[in-house]
Amino acid sequence: MIKAGIIGSTGYAGQELVRLLLQHKDAEIVWYGSRTYIDKKYGEVYQNMFQLVDAACMDDNMDELAEKADVIFTATPQGLCASLVKNEILSRVKIVDLSADFRIKEVNIYEEWYGIKHVSPAFIGEAVYGLCEINREQVKKARLVANPGCYPTCTTLSVYPLLKEGLIHPGSIIVDAKSGTSGAGRAAKLGYLYCEVNENMKAYGVANHRHTPEIEEQLSYAAGESVKINFTPHLVPINRGILVTAYGNLNRTVTHDEVKAIYDKYYKDEYFIRVLDKGVYPETRWVEGSNFIDINFVIDSRTNRIIMMGAMDNLVKGAAGQAVQNMNLMFGLEETSGLRSVPIFP
Amino acid sequence: MIKAGIIGSTGYAGQELVRLLLQHKDAEIVWYGSRTYIDKKYGEVYQNMFQLVDAACMDDNMDELAEKADVIFTATPQGLCASLVKNEILSRVKIVDLSADFRIKEVNIYEEWYGIKHVSPAFIGEAVYGLCEINREQVKKARLVANPGCYPTCTTLSVYPLLKEGLIHPGSIIVDAKSGTSGAGRAAKLGYLYCEVNENMKAYGVANHRHTPEIEEQLSYAAGESVKINFTPHLVPINRGILVTAYGNLNRTVTHDEVKAIYDKYYKDEYFIRVLDKGVYPETRWVEGSNFIDINFVIDSRTNRIIMMGAMDNLVKGAAGQAVQNMNLMFGLEETSGLRSVPIFP
Amino acid sequence: MIKAGIIGSTGYAGQELVRLLLQHKDAEIVWYGSRTYIDKKYGEVYQNMFQLVDAACMDDNMDELAEKADVIFTATPQGLCASLVKNEILSRVKIVDLSADFRIKEVNIYEEWYGIKHVSPAFIGEAVYGLCEINREQVKKARLVANPGCYPTCTTLSVYPLLKEGLIHPGSIIVDAKSGTSGAGRAAKLGYLYCEVNENMKAYGVANHRHTPEIEEQLSYAAGESVKINFTPHLVPINRGILVTAYGNLNRTVTHDEVKAIYDKYYKDEYFIRVLDKGVYPETRWVEGSNFIDINFVIDSRTNRIIMMGAMDNLVKGAAGQAVQNMNLMFGLEETSGLRSVPIFP
Amino acid sequence: MIKAGIIGSTGYAGQELVRLLLQHKDAEIVWYGSRTYIDKKYGEVYQNMFQLVDAACMDDNMDELAEKADVIFTATPQGLCASLVKNEILSRVKIVDLSADFRIKEVNIYEEWYGIKHVSPAFIGEAVYGLCEINREQVKKARLVANPGCYPTCTTLSVYPLLKEGLIHPGSIIVDAKSGTSGAGRAAKLGYLYCEVNENMKAYGVANHRHTPEIEEQLSYAAGESVKINFTPHLVPINRGILVTAYGNLNRTVTHDEVKAIYDKYYKDEYFIRVLDKGVYPETRWVEGSNFIDINFVIDSRTNRIIMMGAMDNLVKGAAGQAVQNMNLMFGLEETSGLRSVPIFP
Repeated sequence: MIKAGIIGSTGYAGQELVRLLLQHKDAEIVWYGSRTYIDKKYGEVYQNMFQLVDAACMDDNMDELAEKADVIFTATPQGLCASLVKNEILSRVKIVDLSADFRIKEVNIYEEWYGIKHVSPAFIGEAVYGLCEINREQVKKARLVANPGCYPTCTTLSVYPLLKEGLIHPGSIIVDAKSGTSGAGRAAKLGYLYCEVNENMKAYGVANHRHTPEIEEQLSYAAGESVKINFTPHLVPINRGILVTAYGNLNRTVTHDEVKAIYDKYYKDEYFIRVLDKGVYPETRWVEGSNFIDINFVIDSRTNRIIMMGAMDNLVKGAAGQAVQNMNLMFGLEETSGLRSVPIFP
Repeated sequence: MIKAGIIGSTGYAGQELVRLLLQHKDAEIVWYGSRTYIDKKYGEVYQNMFQLVDAACMDDNMDELAEKADVIFTATPQGLCASLVKNEILSRVKIVDLSADFRIKEVNIYEEWYGIKHVSPAFIGEAVYGLCEINREQVKKARLVANPGCYPTCTTLSVYPLLKEGLIHPGSIIVDAKSGTSGAGRAAKLGYLYCEVNENMKAYGVANHRHTPEIEEQLSYAAGESVKINFTPHLVPINRGILVTAYGNLNRTVTHDEVKAIYDKYYKDEYFIRVLDKGVYPETRWVEGSNFIDINFVIDSRTNRIIMMGAMDNLVKGAAGQAVQNMNLMFGLEETSGLRSVPIFP
Repeated sequence: MIKAGIIGSTGYAGQELVRLLLQHKDAEIVWYGSRTYIDKKYGEVYQNMFQLVDAACMDDNMDELAEKADVIFTATPQGLCASLVKNEILSRVKIVDLSADFRIKEVNIYEEWYGIKHVSPAFIGEAVYGLCEINREQVKKARLVANPGCYPTCTTLSVYPLLKEGLIHPGSIIVDAKSGTSGAGRAAKLGYLYCEVNENMKAYGVANHRHTPEIEEQLSYAAGESVKINFTPHLVPINRGILVTAYGNLNRTVTHDEVKAIYDKYYKDEYFIRVLDKGVYPETRWVEGSNFIDINFVIDSRTNRIIMMGAMDNLVKGAAGQAVQNMNLMFGLEETSGLRSVPIFP
Repeated sequence: MIKAGIIGSTGYAGQELVRLLLQHKDAEIVWYGSRTYIDKKYGEVYQNMFQLVDAACMDDNMDELAEKADVIFTATPQGLCASLVKNEILSRVKIVDLSADFRIKEVNIYEEWYGIKHVSPAFIGEAVYGLCEINREQVKKARLVANPGCYPTCTTLSVYPLLKEGLIHPGSIIVDAKSGTSGAGRAAKLGYLYCEVNENMKAYGVANHRHTPEIEEQLSYAAGESVKINFTPHLVPINRGILVTAYGNLNRTVTHDEVKAIYDKYYKDEYFIRVLDKGVYPETRWVEGSNFIDINFVIDSRTNRIIMMGAMDNLVKGAAGQAVQNMNLMFGLEETSGLRSVPIFP
């Protein structure tokens, strides 16, 4: 039984981790960390957990946590995990960091886009970017995993094979993404009030969203050269779900079957990646509550571009689910353990 | 491994049954019945099941079904199950009927409220009303279970203990209920279009909703006398969830603790019934996707009435989940098997 | 041209006042009060007003305001208007108070339910309860109007005629109400975040909501005796709209036509009250953005009760629209001036 | 008083026309056409119009309609208006066609994308594309106006000035658009049921949506050369609103102020086009119910692209509002007459 501690268990991603781990036969939660709700019963913070979780929330205490836990999940604001990671800690527990602290290999890019100083850059090199389908073998051996961001997960998995195979021009990629509101977190901000979000659509972070360099780094690995993209996220009135619509210029004329074969080459054995049948586009409703990402594409011969689409649940494959998937790999469990629940609809 | 056949597997309740049974370790689905989608792959009707269900939909064929299945779920319009039930069938398979055909013991009341002739009244007596927490022992022995309606489940469980203990006046009960839109089913009707339901609230079936006599019959058992109620359902723009707010005149002065003790007397060992802490009211978000029903009450000493509240997921405890719970009881499995998933939020 | 000042113009009710007054041919806004947004352009606080309102927000300054305005609307928290009202002010401007300060005639009941001391009880007697359809003549002569609460408006107008005519038993009234989320105001509170409200229903303020005594007072006037009710509000995921479902015991056997005649007796000349045709129930979508309240009823002969229903837009007839209607009456304008816009659907 | 007849008055666009014309001081509706609801009172089809519209729906009868009306609006499926237009009719009444029949100048392109034969191609040349801000003078003289599609309106107005001024490369344009569900019309189709649309996002019509050639034609006029674009619409769970996010490669280095100056050159006197302040992005909530389109842009110097954004209400500026704006121009009324209502929020 893997003992898991969660720092930041009362945010939406943290709570989703709790939900998934409660349903995981080989894991148990030993620490419900939350600076905001210290000593409050977890089942009162999230009433869905009433009678399912008896524990109360606890403050951070890395020493005690490292004592009790086999793995620590940090579902916290940027900077916190970086401040906690030490060799002494990593020698005792594994860490899956859901923040951005260890996702970007160049520390100056991290500091530029996030506007904070990185306090433990020494561990950036060791950290494995936990996009399991791409970096599976490294994750298995990792002590410290940087759990990917929601937009980067959905974008990278949608675009990766075509870029890797040289099918699309790296400089041409435009990513137009739409997210449900749980991605904004559980902070009481005016802009996320029901009446402000409901019956509204808007772009935000246009040309400066922090997930841009993370996506660019991953796509650069695929392309084998430095990639710059346009990335525009939008806020949409749903709770869960990310939809990515990505555009790329084709380097050569291709048929649907040829492109499908490329996706299959990379993904046909991946349980969590479902490349859909021709003509069926990804929709967020079909993946809700699950760790699946649905992917498909359309070739536009009129413009010689390809439209790549991906849909997933931002709190699962985009956060907590992928974190559990990483944990499974790190501890030698079956990769899908605790993550086989069927998408819930409607 | 229990082999389950579903007639009407492509409605919302049927699909929810599929979702739950796919996650049930002791059951497998052998028949995806659907008159509308014969020969169409189930995973194309419900794209969330893509790659999870390989089977195609099949027409009704009771003989073949009775051959292949240990249990048949009928998630069909009223009248269909009644037309299928025969001694010869019941001698070979158990049936859990999600329609109203066998819920009401007096056939003339059924025929009056539903406006159709009952074609197999002989089985009404045998059928067990599958409200597990009330009729557990009979369900265990049943061949034919009438799975309760969503409103009746939520109402009866919220009101039953107080009526049974004589705390509220049977003639005073008013039930004001609110339901998400999945309760209306998956038929393409103008009134259930997105733009008609969204940003709207309305009452419907005022003073004549078909669940009224079903609720009254169950409450009459509790009261030991004939009970007539007011029941007003409302349509609310959410996918899942039922909230019942019920009012009753108190027969005597009581304290919160006394009432709580009564609820506990009936429910304290019930896994799926959560009587909440004082001051915490049931909310549908805390039970979504799960088989829980959350219940609480407030005493209004100013008016000498008590307000009883219940919240549950209409597709789970109100339909498919309770059907699986009944199946578990009928086959001697652990009652919560396949039904322990944590409510999903947000 | 009536010059209007608004204190609290940046809440949802205040903003709705701005919207309505901008469309009013005989009124102009001379003061956009907002303690939170002092000096910020109103069109930046509410971007819908961009290029339509050039003014910036201003702090309270009653002297200056009384100088510039003919009427002051206070769309502010309880207690503020009470602290501003003085004879010297009322001698110069009329006031329409959208808070509860002057709605309840017995100061001790106000203080008990609102938990604050009333600092200008001397004006309670003078204040006219601005339910125009009931108190039209007094409103016309008023200097100080207490604009009714949203729930009290919808409830009182739905129930008033039947109570006044002695058709229902005053002690039997139960009011089950549902409101959209704009009624909660624009404060950044966790409970009103999109993800907390969306896909959820809940009761709140059960047996202790502050609108209870206000409703009871108005119904007591109708009944000619002291009335106590049960009032249960619910929060529903829509922006605008209130739906009231009220239950009362009938004092005698009546036909639909008889009850309809009673409603017509009171409302047939009322522009803003639409008593619907038999079988058509009020729905909030049909009144959105307008000052209409739609009303209807169903007689339940089985239980000898009557179900009364009312639907309106909580921000218009329940707040800003009724405030403008009061202003129209107070200044001798046509009562419907500025308020004839057609409900917007979908 | 302009007498208006509406063919197709019971679709969402038709109903919005009714709403706007009821509030128009110089127009009155003399014909509520609807094949589906012949003889049914309009106020029963759309209960928001109860007591506001007394008329019943009527079948098509062009002779009688041409007799009674000064202008006919056709809010009908493609092909119908083309089948009605005749010189004899146009000599008696003006027509504003909300369908696509006369929007595209090359009949073979229309027939290819719409899959139907055009039965009155002779009038295509005469028809004026009713994008008022671009074609104002021709609209004033027109007998037959092709009212633009919702996506084409939002896209063209967002992109036009920059393309016209040669700032962006015509071959680089990618349009990622999102629409509320009212754009799908009021037909009872499974895909538009509440539970199918709610909590979901999806692309549709990828690389083959019918609005593509209409947008391309308009952008070609701006560019002075043939333009091909990528256009991807998405369905989002809101009632009203279109958001366009368009991407183009910059032909030269520009500053924000330079681009702003270009937009201002074209739009600074346009009442209905609001170019927002720097850093403020268009959001659909700020234009709901109004004829405004909000526009802004962001220069991405990293990729040398510009992101252009536009938001409007698809039923108003994208359909009925623009139709009224065209009517105003055609009859010499003030262009904004009947269209000055303030956007409604929340």
